[in-house]
Amino acid sequence: MSNLSHFVCTLCGQKFEPARPQTVCPRDGGLLLARYNFELIRELKPESLAERSKTIWRYAELLPAPASPVTLGEGFTPLLASQSTPGLWIKNEGANPTGSFEDRGSSVAVSALRNSGVQQVAVASAGDSATSLSAYCAAACLKSFVFMPKDAVLANRASCAAYGAELTLVDGAVEECEQAIREAIALQDCFGIADGREPYRLEGEKTLGFELVEQLGWRIPDAIIVPTGSGSLVVAIWKALQELEALAWIGPKRPRVVAVQAAGCAPIVRAFAEEEADCEPWANPQTIASELRIESPRAGSLALKILRESRGLAVAVTDREMLVACSQLAGREGIFAAPEGGAALAAYTKLRATGLLRESDEVVIVNTRSGLKSPEAFGNSRKPLPKSHSLGGIIQPY
Amino acid sequence: MSNLSHFVCTLCGQKFEPARPQTVCPRDGGLLLARYNFELIRELKPESLAERSKTIWRYAELLPAPASPVTLGEGFTPLLASQSTPGLWIKNEGANPTGSFEDRGSSVAVSALRNSGVQQVAVASAGDSATSLSAYCAAACLKSFVFMPKDAVLANRASCAAYGAELTLVDGAVEECEQAIREAIALQDCFGIADGREPYRLEGEKTLGFELVEQLGWRIPDAIIVPTGSGSLVVAIWKALQELEALAWIGPKRPRVVAVQAAGCAPIVRAFAEEEADCEPWANPQTIASELRIESPRAGSLALKILRESRGLAVAVTDREMLVACSQLAGREGIFAAPEGGAALAAYTKLRATGLLRESDEVVIVNTRSGLKSPEAFGNSRKPLPKSHSLGGIIQPY
Repeated sequence: MSNLSHFVCTLCGQKFEPARPQTVCPRDGGLLLARYNFELIRELKPESLAERSKTIWRYAELLPAPASPVTLGEGFTPLLASQSTPGLWIKNEGANPTGSFEDRGSSVAVSALRNSGVQQVAVASAGDSATSLSAYCAAACLKSFVFMPKDAVLANRASCAAYGAELTLVDGAVEECEQAIREAIALQDCFGIADGREPYRLEGEKTLGFELVEQLGWRIPDAIIVPTGSGSLVVAIWKALQELEALAWIGPKRPRVVAVQAAGCAPIVRAFAEEEADCEPWANPQTIASELRIESPRAGSLALKILRESRGLAVAVTDREMLVACSQLAGREGIFAAPEGGAALAAYTKLRATGLLRESDEVVIVNTRSGLKSPEAFGNSRKPLPKSHSLGGIIQPY
Repeated sequence: MSNLSHFVCTLCGQKFEPARPQTVCPRDGGLLLARYNFELIRELKPESLAERSKTIWRYAELLPAPASPVTLGEGFTPLLASQSTPGLWIKNEGANPTGSFEDRGSSVAVSALRNSGVQQVAVASAGDSATSLSAYCAAACLKSFVFMPKDAVLANRASCAAYGAELTLVDGAVEECEQAIREAIALQDCFGIADGREPYRLEGEKTLGFELVEQLGWRIPDAIIVPTGSGSLVVAIWKALQELEALAWIGPKRPRVVAVQAAGCAPIVRAFAEEEADCEPWANPQTIASELRIESPRAGSLALKILRESRGLAVAVTDREMLVACSQLAGREGIFAAPEGGAALAAYTKLRATGLLRESDEVVIVNTRSGLKSPEAFGNSRKPLPKSHSLGGIIQPY
């Protein structure tokens, strides 16, 4: 039995029944959010979780479709105390089954869609979410049609193809992929998934918020730094905290939520600085952080509201700053993060330097994806060979 | 307090004290194995584990150096029931921090070495173990010197460099790297790690055996299929089962242990078929499964003994069979395995076809590493674009 009560449109407030696959509000295209009957779960206590599976499904009461989920072991990723910076924590989402936080959303979405009898799924994405969804569709025996930019990283192209997705590489960015998906949905009987076009993935993503609070012993950190493309992860983490408070597992304290974007594609940062309620599309987005190359963040206005409500910030960092921070994450912490994770550390370093975050603040940075996803980003790094290792002619520098 | 009693040489039986970093038996070069005082841990029960961290350190009593381990969240990887084959389980080691089972051994080895005051580590490997060790050295503030073949996959080269290892690419296979490491150790004050040259990594690897039995509810499967390079993982899993029996957590039942190797490098398979006690080096090893390209398996004779004792088998599969099996793992189970994991499924398929494994057998196959480590292996796969997706000129096939 699901505790899901209904979905609600974030624009007009209209309610929708939970029984069938939902997309967006038919009236205004607004993003839908799931609402639960907390009365039904009053008896659930944090202690009840201790012996449960270390996946997102330990929070089954707070997810849609808890019966027979499609799971690959997603979630409950390591929250690691920094070895070099007291008070800093790193949530390493690279440990998820396909190497990114997207697996949380995919597990919930594919479970819900399969339960509803959906047999074909079409997805447009910068790379990670399509890869993740195609893995879960494979495990659920659903057919997947994937649209990603033709310059998507090899790891995503190769694994999508292996998962059996009908993979189409589009000459453009994620927005062109979304155009292509609309045509595909018109041609096939597919359920279409793209950022902000359905409410299920966000439910999975919110488990990241549950986890980091649970892993901190139900303590609320002072700030959370989130690499932000569409803005959905900011919304998801915030929703998680609201739900934990509704369960009285935490009090009213909230972390400052910091969105970090790439200097070459920072629509949320710009709108935040200009005190706009929503984002303008970013012209000619350019960054090595492929998952941050989203010119029109679908959850931008919701994310902006949360950043302000939490007295948070939106910070842009350059590709160079990301790579330097990736080096620090790898060299000091032993975590090989993708540039997106580097962006989070770079933002932390900036905010500490400017005094916007203090040494005494407890801060969580999210590494949203494994560096193994895009070793190409580091491909030009080249270290000189130390003299002591000139062992004859057989040795070549990296 | 450690329950470690001593180390014992697998060749001459001589005992060594646990207090300082051990390598191999100084008398005969034999591999050393750790032995524990089981009397000290009699009170430990399976139920005690339920609330512990889901890392290898949940088994701290059965590991060296339990105090302040160097951990990145390794272990307790998903054991997934096959979606397509009843009775088949897949242990997915790709979910480890650096993407391979090697993180288990690295966490234990680097913890033990740091505790002993070691400051520099030199490692030779086909790729994964060097990458893993350099990550743990980074987290432990130890300097690492890494030697891997120059054709090592990009993911390993890039991440090793990021971890701050002094990376040397050697024109040869792992055996040439081992030669280079000996010269490096002579030049620097380094602790050298290579297959079968120290007893710590094996202690970490054995947690894979603990886990899969715990995850099966302390039931012993009928067979375990292990991708096998040096043979250490076979030895480690077997040691785990012996220790669980010493604790009376399991009975005398053992799984049949099946070692799978590449047809282009199968020294253990050949020695098993020819009823030899040890392996001859494999001339001109060739396989896309880089971690199986070990021409002289250091733990070969121990592994052969275990295969025979367990009424197990040694099976060779071709690169083509690995890739077909990887497709099946991805397309049917949603698991993007490296060729090594594909080899395990290919062996299962062969043994079922020949009747050596039955439909009623409960079998665990180990996917030792993530497919994200070596997407190059799948780089030539190319699917025709379905007609329904010819959406104008913007679309290109993968």
